[in-house]
Amino acid sequence: MPIRTAAEYIESLRGRKLRVYLMGELVEEPVDHPIIRPSINAVADTYAMAEEDPELATATSKLTGQRVNRFLQVTQDANDVVMQNRMQRRLGQRTGTCFQRCVGMDAINSMYSVTYDIDQKHGTQYHTRFTDFVKHMQRENFVVGGAMTDPKGDRSKSPHEQADPDMFLRVVERRPDGVVLRGAKAHQTGCINSHWLLVMPTMRLGEGDKDYAICAAIPVDHPGISYIYGRQSCDTRAMEDTDIDNGNQRFGGQEAMIIFEDVFVPNSHVFMDGEYQFAATLVERFTGYHRRSYVCKTGLGDVIIGAAATIADYNGVAKASHIKDKLVEMTHLNETIYGAGIAASHESKPTAAGNYQCDEMLANVCKHNVTRFPYEISRLAQDLAGGLMVTLPADADFKNEKTKPLLEKYLAGRPGVSVDNRRRVLRLIENMTMGRNAVGYLTESMHGAGSPQAQRVQITRLSDMEGKKRLAKNLAGVKDEE
Amino acid sequence: MPIRTAAEYIESLRGRKLRVYLMGELVEEPVDHPIIRPSINAVADTYAMAEEDPELATATSKLTGQRVNRFLQVTQDANDVVMQNRMQRRLGQRTGTCFQRCVGMDAINSMYSVTYDIDQKHGTQYHTRFTDFVKHMQRENFVVGGAMTDPKGDRSKSPHEQADPDMFLRVVERRPDGVVLRGAKAHQTGCINSHWLLVMPTMRLGEGDKDYAICAAIPVDHPGISYIYGRQSCDTRAMEDTDIDNGNQRFGGQEAMIIFEDVFVPNSHVFMDGEYQFAATLVERFTGYHRRSYVCKTGLGDVIIGAAATIADYNGVAKASHIKDKLVEMTHLNETIYGAGIAASHESKPTAAGNYQCDEMLANVCKHNVTRFPYEISRLAQDLAGGLMVTLPADADFKNEKTKPLLEKYLAGRPGVSVDNRRRVLRLIENMTMGRNAVGYLTESMHGAGSPQAQRVQITRLSDMEGKKRLAKNLAGVKDEE
Amino acid sequence: MPIRTAAEYIESLRGRKLRVYLMGELVEEPVDHPIIRPSINAVADTYAMAEEDPELATATSKLTGQRVNRFLQVTQDANDVVMQNRMQRRLGQRTGTCFQRCVGMDAINSMYSVTYDIDQKHGTQYHTRFTDFVKHMQRENFVVGGAMTDPKGDRSKSPHEQADPDMFLRVVERRPDGVVLRGAKAHQTGCINSHWLLVMPTMRLGEGDKDYAICAAIPVDHPGISYIYGRQSCDTRAMEDTDIDNGNQRFGGQEAMIIFEDVFVPNSHVFMDGEYQFAATLVERFTGYHRRSYVCKTGLGDVIIGAAATIADYNGVAKASHIKDKLVEMTHLNETIYGAGIAASHESKPTAAGNYQCDEMLANVCKHNVTRFPYEISRLAQDLAGGLMVTLPADADFKNEKTKPLLEKYLAGRPGVSVDNRRRVLRLIENMTMGRNAVGYLTESMHGAGSPQAQRVQITRLSDMEGKKRLAKNLAGVKDEE
Amino acid sequence: MPIRTAAEYIESLRGRKLRVYLMGELVEEPVDHPIIRPSINAVADTYAMAEEDPELATATSKLTGQRVNRFLQVTQDANDVVMQNRMQRRLGQRTGTCFQRCVGMDAINSMYSVTYDIDQKHGTQYHTRFTDFVKHMQRENFVVGGAMTDPKGDRSKSPHEQADPDMFLRVVERRPDGVVLRGAKAHQTGCINSHWLLVMPTMRLGEGDKDYAICAAIPVDHPGISYIYGRQSCDTRAMEDTDIDNGNQRFGGQEAMIIFEDVFVPNSHVFMDGEYQFAATLVERFTGYHRRSYVCKTGLGDVIIGAAATIADYNGVAKASHIKDKLVEMTHLNETIYGAGIAASHESKPTAAGNYQCDEMLANVCKHNVTRFPYEISRLAQDLAGGLMVTLPADADFKNEKTKPLLEKYLAGRPGVSVDNRRRVLRLIENMTMGRNAVGYLTESMHGAGSPQAQRVQITRLSDMEGKKRLAKNLAGVKDEE
Repeated sequence: MPIRTAAEYIESLRGRKLRVYLMGELVEEPVDHPIIRPSINAVADTYAMAEEDPELATATSKLTGQRVNRFLQVTQDANDVVMQNRMQRRLGQRTGTCFQRCVGMDAINSMYSVTYDIDQKHGTQYHTRFTDFVKHMQRENFVVGGAMTDPKGDRSKSPHEQADPDMFLRVVERRPDGVVLRGAKAHQTGCINSHWLLVMPTMRLGEGDKDYAICAAIPVDHPGISYIYGRQSCDTRAMEDTDIDNGNQRFGGQEAMIIFEDVFVPNSHVFMDGEYQFAATLVERFTGYHRRSYVCKTGLGDVIIGAAATIADYNGVAKASHIKDKLVEMTHLNETIYGAGIAASHESKPTAAGNYQCDEMLANVCKHNVTRFPYEISRLAQDLAGGLMVTLPADADFKNEKTKPLLEKYLAGRPGVSVDNRRRVLRLIENMTMGRNAVGYLTESMHGAGSPQAQRVQITRLSDMEGKKRLAKNLAGVKDEE
Repeated sequence: MPIRTAAEYIESLRGRKLRVYLMGELVEEPVDHPIIRPSINAVADTYAMAEEDPELATATSKLTGQRVNRFLQVTQDANDVVMQNRMQRRLGQRTGTCFQRCVGMDAINSMYSVTYDIDQKHGTQYHTRFTDFVKHMQRENFVVGGAMTDPKGDRSKSPHEQADPDMFLRVVERRPDGVVLRGAKAHQTGCINSHWLLVMPTMRLGEGDKDYAICAAIPVDHPGISYIYGRQSCDTRAMEDTDIDNGNQRFGGQEAMIIFEDVFVPNSHVFMDGEYQFAATLVERFTGYHRRSYVCKTGLGDVIIGAAATIADYNGVAKASHIKDKLVEMTHLNETIYGAGIAASHESKPTAAGNYQCDEMLANVCKHNVTRFPYEISRLAQDLAGGLMVTLPADADFKNEKTKPLLEKYLAGRPGVSVDNRRRVLRLIENMTMGRNAVGYLTESMHGAGSPQAQRVQITRLSDMEGKKRLAKNLAGVKDEE
Repeated sequence: MPIRTAAEYIESLRGRKLRVYLMGELVEEPVDHPIIRPSINAVADTYAMAEEDPELATATSKLTGQRVNRFLQVTQDANDVVMQNRMQRRLGQRTGTCFQRCVGMDAINSMYSVTYDIDQKHGTQYHTRFTDFVKHMQRENFVVGGAMTDPKGDRSKSPHEQADPDMFLRVVERRPDGVVLRGAKAHQTGCINSHWLLVMPTMRLGEGDKDYAICAAIPVDHPGISYIYGRQSCDTRAMEDTDIDNGNQRFGGQEAMIIFEDVFVPNSHVFMDGEYQFAATLVERFTGYHRRSYVCKTGLGDVIIGAAATIADYNGVAKASHIKDKLVEMTHLNETIYGAGIAASHESKPTAAGNYQCDEMLANVCKHNVTRFPYEISRLAQDLAGGLMVTLPADADFKNEKTKPLLEKYLAGRPGVSVDNRRRVLRLIENMTMGRNAVGYLTESMHGAGSPQAQRVQITRLSDMEGKKRLAKNLAGVKDEE
Repeated sequence: MPIRTAAEYIESLRGRKLRVYLMGELVEEPVDHPIIRPSINAVADTYAMAEEDPELATATSKLTGQRVNRFLQVTQDANDVVMQNRMQRRLGQRTGTCFQRCVGMDAINSMYSVTYDIDQKHGTQYHTRFTDFVKHMQRENFVVGGAMTDPKGDRSKSPHEQADPDMFLRVVERRPDGVVLRGAKAHQTGCINSHWLLVMPTMRLGEGDKDYAICAAIPVDHPGISYIYGRQSCDTRAMEDTDIDNGNQRFGGQEAMIIFEDVFVPNSHVFMDGEYQFAATLVERFTGYHRRSYVCKTGLGDVIIGAAATIADYNGVAKASHIKDKLVEMTHLNETIYGAGIAASHESKPTAAGNYQCDEMLANVCKHNVTRFPYEISRLAQDLAGGLMVTLPADADFKNEKTKPLLEKYLAGRPGVSVDNRRRVLRLIENMTMGRNAVGYLTESMHGAGSPQAQRVQITRLSDMEGKKRLAKNLAGVKDEE
């Protein structure tokens, strides 16, 4: 029976005996760990929204004929691609953080077309296998995490040239019924809260790298896998007895390193094995989708703009022209990101496999703006927040009977605004600009789906500079060039 | 018989006895004036492209059932709105200037829906009249210029409060068969090269401003109209004996002041008369379309990026990493504009009248970026051009027998690049960043379709700040607000 | 006997029985509290540097004829003002944080001239009293904290109009031998680690605000004072068993709220009492000095640029042109801040009292750039750091015997770089861009010495716009204006 | 008898029989040519100011004991260097253009120390010769133009490797009494309006380039020299019968190519000949001074800010908050340039020869900001100007009896502002952002004294990145690095 509700989803994660390390300790039950739980809640909201707003967060799958969670949908037209963006923005608004389910969505869509292309070239059966896998996920309504980024070791060397051959995930053994994998995936956003992982190569591979050209699906609770949880700014506030100082009590992101110690994968779940020429294609299609998926950050932008507007209200300065001007600037930047992203989706074209792939130039432009504008939006939010955001005492001081009356006396602002509400909004801005969700709103905006230079390389490649030169030469009347 | 070709279009403008003043003189025949001709050539290219690429530059009109120039099409679906943008970018690439036909296109589409709405409210017959007018334009393939901006006088006063009541175009007499108009329209892009003018109010009007609530179509060669041509940077180079120093010899823009001295308009060409409540609606719909029409500047951007890349080639520095980095930055900014614009078009929704209106937020965001990025692109182009762009002697010095050999000796660059071609490309960059087409690429990017602050006002209005505050308060856990 | 060394300074803070609240608890001994200690270490470094580099960090006082710590020097010429900036940058480089002693330095210098001016006007004796106080501080080599920012309550109301009259520090009783003060000072950078506090009004006062026009010196350990410590991003990492995850183990900043519950100050330590007309003068002089004191952030900038360059080395990408380009951009921005700051100091002019006051325009320009460029420098540092900065597991995971070998295997980078050193540098960048010292490097850069809009108001006031208009009109040939 | 007044200076230029080509023709008398005259007027203003404000624009020379024009002063202390900047800003305010005399000033000061250093190393007598030359200039109060930039030909090759050996100025013959020079200098700002030229190498030279390692003084009217005048945007408006359309009727810049056809220079005027190792030193010292000399652009900035403020007044919108905000932004950017420049001068240090050399890092930072901020200031000025700046008819239309009343009627703004004054200010903004003086305010700001990348190279070189890394490693606790 498929998972239907947020509660069912959370229940589905319990008791899986995952080997998760966090701050030096093996975690008993990740679902109940206060640092981990907010990231589970964020994914749970993708289920909640599917119930509350099915038009936005579900779609009818051609594969199964059933209504499925949109994160599991193979896009059937440009509108399906557009709707992903709308859903992403809305989830960003609801959670104020990275909800971690996009990597899987984008991996499904890029592997769908790449497996098709491999089969066409090599006569393999990956596409059918993969389609079966997707149907399974759709029927069970599972969360699929995409796992792409290898540790990479010495960046000047290709996978097979590394001193330690495990610096990229690889096939260490091929058996008649499947393959055995070893290696790791780093910076994995959302894995412990997934049901399945889709592993994929992280970059263009050469002929010597055949063992690294592996795509496969693996259950998250496979006994050969360990997870080491990455720490985040202010992470341990979740362990404190406060529902204010976290800023965003319910929702957070998750980053972990996944280690594969000789993990067996049956053939039915292998979707590329050795076809190294397709690694670059897969990466390009995936980053195409995924760079445009960063419109989710405009949902976070809506939250931070709203928080800045609220604190301006609370401070009694909402009508000052410079305050209004900063809010409109924040909005303009946020919508500029959205424009390029949604445009990339609207401009989708069908692949040979029949699903739809977004426009690569606009997707890169969207992501490149994401590496800039959230930082400026954050700066402006800190401007509006005022210095109190970083001088506010701990929630415990507001509970201590000596300091509580002093703080409430001296932190009183304009009439009708409670000190507690003021604190809550300030802590939310802190959370998004310096705290746990700054990881998602800022640093992950910088590096997720490729660091800025990666977009610049792609934009250059796509810029048709020779065509542009011809335009200029034509108008300038350039003559007789050899 | 409709106008079919660029040549026919140019011929159609001859002999119209227009009263055009330019640099203190009445122009004999505008078509043959070297300062005016490039702006006619630019419009002519909209005809040429319709022949060369009909899919892009024409559309099938539901009104006539015929294939019509896309500039005259009433948009029938979102794709029609998107296709306008594609055509605009391509024309920007072909001409490197403002091709001046968009105002009419956007006026047609906004008046189409507004006349419908007025009729619904007031029981008038404007929509039918207007539809007949559009059919006429489509059948003859005429150029329609939109005329909106009034001189405005004292900006702190409404039209009817002005010391001189003519500071906004107005009805000075109502006759049974029509109305008599007096006043002026300033900053008119493309009028002398049009066949018809569509006059429209320029801003929200109040009850006292009824005589200013006038929309009407008037032939450009109406005897009551005078045109005073605006001068542009480097305009008189067009009078010199050179095909190099102009930078863009063939194409240019046109700005004029139009003066209406008691111009009679028959009722059949009156599309609003006194319904002041609809003035703001019309302005908003028009600026919605028109702010997104500024994706044309990405076509100019393609040219200037191409010119910068070409001069880098000629200078032998195209491989330097800082050069490549500047080119990718220019491209990124250019595509960011495009993203918001094309997104606004894709997100179009049907009006009550049945045509399609673009998304207003994204249209404003597009235009707001247009008030910034072309300046930065120009700055980078000047960086790549090098100082020679502003120290290069006149073309005449390259023809003078004494100086020609000296200049050719000392301005020689890397082998295989002629001094003349280098000059041509430098003059094109000068043309677009300081010369005649800088008017269109920069200043008009700033103020056309509303100055930056106008977009900020609209973005604020559309930002749903209360909704954003609710998002933030929800996540922050704000409680018990009154 | 004066305090001579860093160790003596730290010893001097012990056993003072301060009432300091931190995270809901009364702190036993602030000197030994792991969260507080780094801020004490930062001030201690001002003593260490005075020993190590006396030319830079000490000066010969005209008041005592002795060599004194430069933070206690009354500036005697422009060079003294310049040397403050040099010292500040160096301390920023040494500590990577706010070293908290500038407020007192700037307060001493502004009060020195303002007390003189009050005496001239009112025949009071404040200047002599204040000079005696400064001599005392110099002889003992005490740390003086300046305390200016009041809680302010409802910002639309002046001090005496507040519902609660204590929202600004005020005189509640005047006795023959002194005054009694009540109220609070918020956002106090460095107080628990000071010996004396100089309280000053925070803004322009009117006649009704006489009781708020109070300047006075008070010992930090006065029994009527309570301190409530502000929490900072990642503050509790200082409580963990790690010397890596803090990023900057030794140094940090300190912000607290100071509450004065009927604190008696003898007349000898009162330096303004009721001369409300001088409140604005004092604030302007103080902010003049203090906005230029933000060149300290260029010292922090040097650290973060160095950290970014180091991580690029460790990642093996230091030679990539885009990496070098980002480092030069960071440097350029950092030096731009320095230029305006040091220029403001060089352009100092003598006051009537004889000490030197910096140029106000350039000081404001310096600070205004400080509200922008550190954010961009941080963004670029995060770009160079890579995503690992926010996905790196906790130090404890590197000590756990199961995870240590896995992490060391998979986080190995280029040969010769240890995983531990890589972690240390990443944690330092995290510390400065999201962690504890981001408070000082970013948010405090935004709001300290006045938020951005405060500088814009001052720049406008100082811009001589009428003079600029005259320049333009002269060149334009404007005629016959009324 | 020395030149004393502006009028005497202009007279001194007459009748020199210079061979100046402009727009294909040999100019009869440059002093009387309407295109050239404004650039002569600008230099003349350096004489006028010396009379009007001798403290600012003159200095007492240690060489002669006399008061000399500050442009001819060998700096004797840091204050002399600072005073150059103050004078430059004031002249920028007075002329609104490049006044062209700084290159010579900076050349004198850099050659003064370099000739000294060459003599120390090689036992030559250049310094005495050069000092004599400077004394001569001071006594006669001549204008000295510095000539550095060679045409360069193929930029991938050094001077002696060029296909045409004349692409860099060189010694073609050495005689007992002097040397013969051949070649050209390009982009020469101010030469026809100078009395003497100081030629210098343009870049680092190698051993094979000895013949190119030449510094010498040559009279401007040497018969072997030809000048080809560079054209500027809107240059020919100076030929029209208008004192309005030029925007800045009196003042302009000048750029020309200078061609040396076997010019003999006596030994007394040769200051380097073959000491190729000192070419790089000379270039660095010169660019050090000259990059900081770009504070002149803050004087132009004052004019354009004033013009923008004036047009806002005229348009009746001066009190709008967004207008005020743009003016303060322009001011902030302008003063940021000034800060770095004046700081570079204040931080001057003595050379071995005894004159003072500015701080190189801050000088580069100053210039680098000059390649950015004037563009943004111009953009904002165009924003405030409104579209009329580029649609305004020609002055002749305001003189034509038909169009004059129409234009005056419809261009009337708020009461009390004449249309003519409005035009004058708009034309000034056009002049500085697109017209003749945009060459100086923008493009020359970009490329003069080295293009942006040249500053980035120097900033990198001066950044002490290794020192910064040590700071970071120290704070991060990096251990045991090899």
